[in-house]
Amino acid sequence: MGLCARTIFSMLAAPNKASTFHKKGYYFMQTNVLPISSAIEKKLEAMNITLPPSVLPAANYVPYTISGNLVHISGQLPMKDGKPQDIGKVGKEFTIEQAQQTARQCGINILSHLKAACGGNLDRVKKCVRLGVFVNSTESFTDQPKVANGVSDMMVEILGEAGKHARFAVGVSQLPFGVAVEVDGTFEIE
Amino acid sequence: MGLCARTIFSMLAAPNKASTFHKKGYYFMQTNVLPISSAIEKKLEAMNITLPPSVLPAANYVPYTISGNLVHISGQLPMKDGKPQDIGKVGKEFTIEQAQQTARQCGINILSHLKAACGGNLDRVKKCVRLGVFVNSTESFTDQPKVANGVSDMMVEILGEAGKHARFAVGVSQLPFGVAVEVDGTFEIE
Amino acid sequence: MGLCARTIFSMLAAPNKASTFHKKGYYFMQTNVLPISSAIEKKLEAMNITLPPSVLPAANYVPYTISGNLVHISGQLPMKDGKPQDIGKVGKEFTIEQAQQTARQCGINILSHLKAACGGNLDRVKKCVRLGVFVNSTESFTDQPKVANGVSDMMVEILGEAGKHARFAVGVSQLPFGVAVEVDGTFEIE
Repeated sequence: MGLCARTIFSMLAAPNKASTFHKKGYYFMQTNVLPISSAIEKKLEAMNITLPPSVLPAANYVPYTISGNLVHISGQLPMKDGKPQDIGKVGKEFTIEQAQQTARQCGINILSHLKAACGGNLDRVKKCVRLGVFVNSTESFTDQPKVANGVSDMMVEILGEAGKHARFAVGVSQLPFGVAVEVDGTFEIE
Repeated sequence: MGLCARTIFSMLAAPNKASTFHKKGYYFMQTNVLPISSAIEKKLEAMNITLPPSVLPAANYVPYTISGNLVHISGQLPMKDGKPQDIGKVGKEFTIEQAQQTARQCGINILSHLKAACGGNLDRVKKCVRLGVFVNSTESFTDQPKVANGVSDMMVEILGEAGKHARFAVGVSQLPFGVAVEVDGTFEIE
Repeated sequence: MGLCARTIFSMLAAPNKASTFHKKGYYFMQTNVLPISSAIEKKLEAMNITLPPSVLPAANYVPYTISGNLVHISGQLPMKDGKPQDIGKVGKEFTIEQAQQTARQCGINILSHLKAACGGNLDRVKKCVRLGVFVNSTESFTDQPKVANGVSDMMVEILGEAGKHARFAVGVSQLPFGVAVEVDGTFEIE
């Protein structure tokens, strides 16, 4: 029982169905079907970043929608191995520097879904259009832009000029699971 | 005094003018000029949901704008009969289950404006692109995603696969009139 | 040493490079290369509003991105002469009326970047699609919509019908530098 080109193509076109294939006994990792030549994949490797798989939420929303040439990514938390990290408020439990890493982790999760939206090929990303950065802040913490730089810097490191985006950064009183940062985003793809 | 086809057409094309017609003595309800065949209207009826009329805010903004094939809906509160409902914070005045109903009510108000944006025909909705869910949260409440499921579930119940959207869910310290939830949204129409 | 048409054109096309020209000794103000006939510029003048220059942030994001015919403007603070104004919470340090002026100042900064995105010609603006209004609120302040009217009114004063937008207005616990209001926006241009 082999995987024909059509099957691999359909996995590329609808990567979220990979888990179905998985259940059927095709133990192909999503990364195995990636174009080898991806410039962005090489950059991720050089930066020692491994994108987690794009997993469907267990609820009636999806990690991303595509409308025209825009991909809208759901608000991402600093999840790692399926568990929320960095629980606490910036200005109390976390310093700016720590929260920048949290924001960066949200960005990595954004990229994992973006990759799925691109059928596995991040080179199809034309532009990071905008990011929305929500920082779980104490009453007196006002350095949300510095925290947001954690994800902004990563986007530009990885996508270059195409990573320069419009953004907002605001302080909120609480976030899902109590995490320190949540980031959503919109990207243009081709 | 009759309503010619042109008049009905202009009511469909600009449903917000319906109130003007109303004032002139045309006691046509907006729902009377709907396509009878609407699958979504039937689903709403089966779910016992009556969409309120899409009323213009008494300020310099509008309930929705259309740009290309995207409809952007203003942040909706849990209004009922023109009055804000569910005033208080989730985690204190409201439980998750109660707040889910509040989120659902925001979604119903979103659909009422979306219907107006579609000239009365919700079957023109191609996709719920994204929802932004703001939950009026106590300092310790971190179940914003569960609250957001109240509106996410409704979108999928009513729109099916087309209702699956990207979203963010965040906790905020206060909302207009003190309501528990505010939701805005973007939809693709044809 | 004169400014040839090509140079002026490139300044119009990439107004953020104006500062480079400035450094090279071309003491041209951005406003000097504007189309004289701009209806919106005349309105701004009549309203005694001077748009500040569109300055690139000192970080890895940009004041605006353009995707298709949409301009996405980064969250704007009530900056004046490069300094944040109106630091404090609405409901404590600021009244509604004061915060409306703050929101308006955010809007002026939005317009300055929008003008740059339009190559200097605000008459290219077709529509204000949506505004996101974040109000730094005390626990008990619930008049975010009234605060948001400060920027909504200005958009309609300046852009007329094209200024009528979808919006959300929410209360947040803190904003960058502690300012009272932050506003982001999306515009359709031609």
